Amino acid sequence: MKKKINIAICGLGNIGSYLYRYLIKHKKQLTEKNRSIPNILLIYAKNKKKKRNFTIPKKKWAKNFDEIIKNNKIDLIIELIGGAEGAAKNLVFKALKHKKHVVTANKALIAKYGDQLAKIAEKNKVNLEFEASVCGGVPVIRSLKEGLIANKINKIYGIFNGTSNYILTSMDKHNKNFKEVLEEAKKLGYAESNPRADLNGEDVSSKLKILSTLCFNSFLNNNIHVEGIKNIDRDDIVNANKLGYKIKLLGFSELIKNSIYQRVHPTLIKKSSYIASIDGVLNAVIVEGKPVGQSVIQGEGAGPAATTSALVSDISSILRGNIKFPFSISNNQRKNLIFKDINERNFSAYLRFEVLDKPGVLSNITRVFSTNKVSVKRLIQNPNKNKGSSSIIIVTHKAKDKSLNKILKSIDKKSYILKKSKLIRIDDD
Amino acid sequence: MKKKINIAICGLGNIGSYLYRYLIKHKKQLTEKNRSIPNILLIYAKNKKKKRNFTIPKKKWAKNFDEIIKNNKIDLIIELIGGAEGAAKNLVFKALKHKKHVVTANKALIAKYGDQLAKIAEKNKVNLEFEASVCGGVPVIRSLKEGLIANKINKIYGIFNGTSNYILTSMDKHNKNFKEVLEEAKKLGYAESNPRADLNGEDVSSKLKILSTLCFNSFLNNNIHVEGIKNIDRDDIVNANKLGYKIKLLGFSELIKNSIYQRVHPTLIKKSSYIASIDGVLNAVIVEGKPVGQSVIQGEGAGPAATTSALVSDISSILRGNIKFPFSISNNQRKNLIFKDINERNFSAYLRFEVLDKPGVLSNITRVFSTNKVSVKRLIQNPNKNKGSSSIIIVTHKAKDKSLNKILKSIDKKSYILKKSKLIRIDDD
Repeated sequence: MKKKINIAICGLGNIGSYLYRYLIKHKKQLTEKNRSIPNILLIYAKNKKKKRNFTIPKKKWAKNFDEIIKNNKIDLIIELIGGAEGAAKNLVFKALKHKKHVVTANKALIAKYGDQLAKIAEKNKVNLEFEASVCGGVPVIRSLKEGLIANKINKIYGIFNGTSNYILTSMDKHNKNFKEVLEEAKKLGYAESNPRADLNGEDVSSKLKILSTLCFNSFLNNNIHVEGIKNIDRDDIVNANKLGYKIKLLGFSELIKNSIYQRVHPTLIKKSSYIASIDGVLNAVIVEGKPVGQSVIQGEGAGPAATTSALVSDISSILRGNIKFPFSISNNQRKNLIFKDINERNFSAYLRFEVLDKPGVLSNITRVFSTNKVSVKRLIQNPNKNKGSSSIIIVTHKAKDKSLNKILKSIDKKSYILKKSKLIRIDDD
Repeated sequence: MKKKINIAICGLGNIGSYLYRYLIKHKKQLTEKNRSIPNILLIYAKNKKKKRNFTIPKKKWAKNFDEIIKNNKIDLIIELIGGAEGAAKNLVFKALKHKKHVVTANKALIAKYGDQLAKIAEKNKVNLEFEASVCGGVPVIRSLKEGLIANKINKIYGIFNGTSNYILTSMDKHNKNFKEVLEEAKKLGYAESNPRADLNGEDVSSKLKILSTLCFNSFLNNNIHVEGIKNIDRDDIVNANKLGYKIKLLGFSELIKNSIYQRVHPTLIKKSSYIASIDGVLNAVIVEGKPVGQSVIQGEGAGPAATTSALVSDISSILRGNIKFPFSISNNQRKNLIFKDINERNFSAYLRFEVLDKPGVLSNITRVFSTNKVSVKRLIQNPNKNKGSSSIIIVTHKAKDKSLNKILKSIDKKSYILKKSKLIRIDDD
């Protein structure tokens, strides 16, 4: 007789609802593939009475989390509540302590408490799986833990946020400004009503911390440089195009001489590069490792359908009884690597200064560059129409990040500066 | 105490040698990640005395396969001999019958005998793993079996052969002809001294059969249309460029109305498409499924390093005790789907006729099209310099494949035809 795995789904929003119906509909196929039966025993939703276009048998409704956690029959809890604190945190900690497997799509929780949770999971020999927390349907975590297990990874980077990529793509293709495109994205369901975490880089930051940990067998680390896309305007995109680049919000985690650098920021990337071709809400992850070389995984990064694909891969792994360490290796084998901030890392960069059009400004600006020993590769001065002002674009050779920022700060103090200057790093490694 | 898995490596060419050294060097890390020790107990090579830049302890050399198969200590046999018949076939059948796990990079063997082998593996509860047989370091099989397990797949296609992609890319970028580029590829190690299977589509055909089986839960099926790249010349590439296309050797397997169509052929694909951007020896696989949508996996398709990455992912799966059906589901759950040949499938196509430059030819050609009810979308006539001959390029609207071939055949009989005409299908689904 086949083993049965009793499941509780906690959280019944868009994703929870999609997953519930998927599991009901595909029970037979999943049983055939994994040799155990996925049986939904309990469901918890904040609002039971919400109108849904499907019905849930009365006996499946749980009154509260305790009813689920203390139920000895429950083997697996699927957490779809969200947020690093509160109910989700409480549920997942308790679930693992009660020796339940956990599958979650909660990147904020894993990025913050993943190490503590993994420790409990390992001690209690249960799974903690979170494929759905990073890049939706893109099976990047399973690829790192299994398909690419042979590799010593030295770099992972890519487009990890569909909302911001959609906005940058639309600004570029339709020559629209940030606000217009954001409104459109909301209407199309590509941006949430409160898209803060998508736009300020926080969402990418959580995902990148999780990926770093998996790539480098390290612990989660909060030393990460994070910038979002809110300051990118149409002019930057036009300038980038003229220089042969696209602007993308990228996350990077790289191992350089035994130190890890984590960073999330808008990046100028050559038009001809693969990553520049990833448009709209797609996600793309690039992994560089030995012996495999460079691998790319690309797909739908969000939405109930893609997320369900990831959740079901985790659920299937548990159905097959494939007990694994949440972060690939045992806690006591994980390394305390050095995470450095990017001050000392070298970048070439695009800097943009909006200045009063008067004599001496250009020479003053270039003097600040030379004082800071940053050499200029290209300089473009565009007079703004009818305004007595100019836009000065400088592309630098490689220089320390702190020198680039120092230049920005010191020029921003000058009286000829009309608005806050900009620094966008270029990816030309 | 940790479990030990005793391994025999059979075949010590480039790949076997790389794998051997990798396993020795990374024994500790693999043990940590998989909680079992990968222990190389025996090695078989045809030529023991070959000069190698590493040494193998005398006691590890096996005299013959029987010594390996009959050794009760051996848990896992890695087959790196190659070929669908002979020694490799003999070894893998016997190994599975003797309840040894098998890891192989042998696409020809799996494409031909995979169903029979999977049956034995399932009966004897051992693993038969073949990630390395398809697209080298690209973890496509593991992604289909695990990361994308939730999905009903309706199409898989892509670039599955690095040699032919390198040749087509070089012909395009450096405006060289087939022969020149092939010689270059041999010198660079991108083509074997006998590259027959790479150029005639056979290599892609084997890989595609394996992928179809995994995607559609069907049995292996030999109903597959296969063409290679040998007839593509510089003019075709130039013409394709003018029309907005690149030429790539693609493999497609697709489920259309409960029938599967398998095909391998040079394809005109829009320049702006993702697949057109995959240059050189890279491989790329595109999977379309529900609920995930479209996923892409790209990476190094060949070479000892990339292949070792794939082999080690299979070995690790066995180290973790992750017993699985070779083709995702049990033999008795696999379906006997209908595989149709492409005669009745609709394609738009590029046809090229080299003709004598005389009155009436064009009207004769177009008449053959209209007789066969194939409508012409574009027609370009290029007079060849000083030869009294012309090149006529026709791009059609969609038509049945058999109608397109009928046109080709009937025009090829005409006296004004100077050399064999060409038909290259266009991907515009």
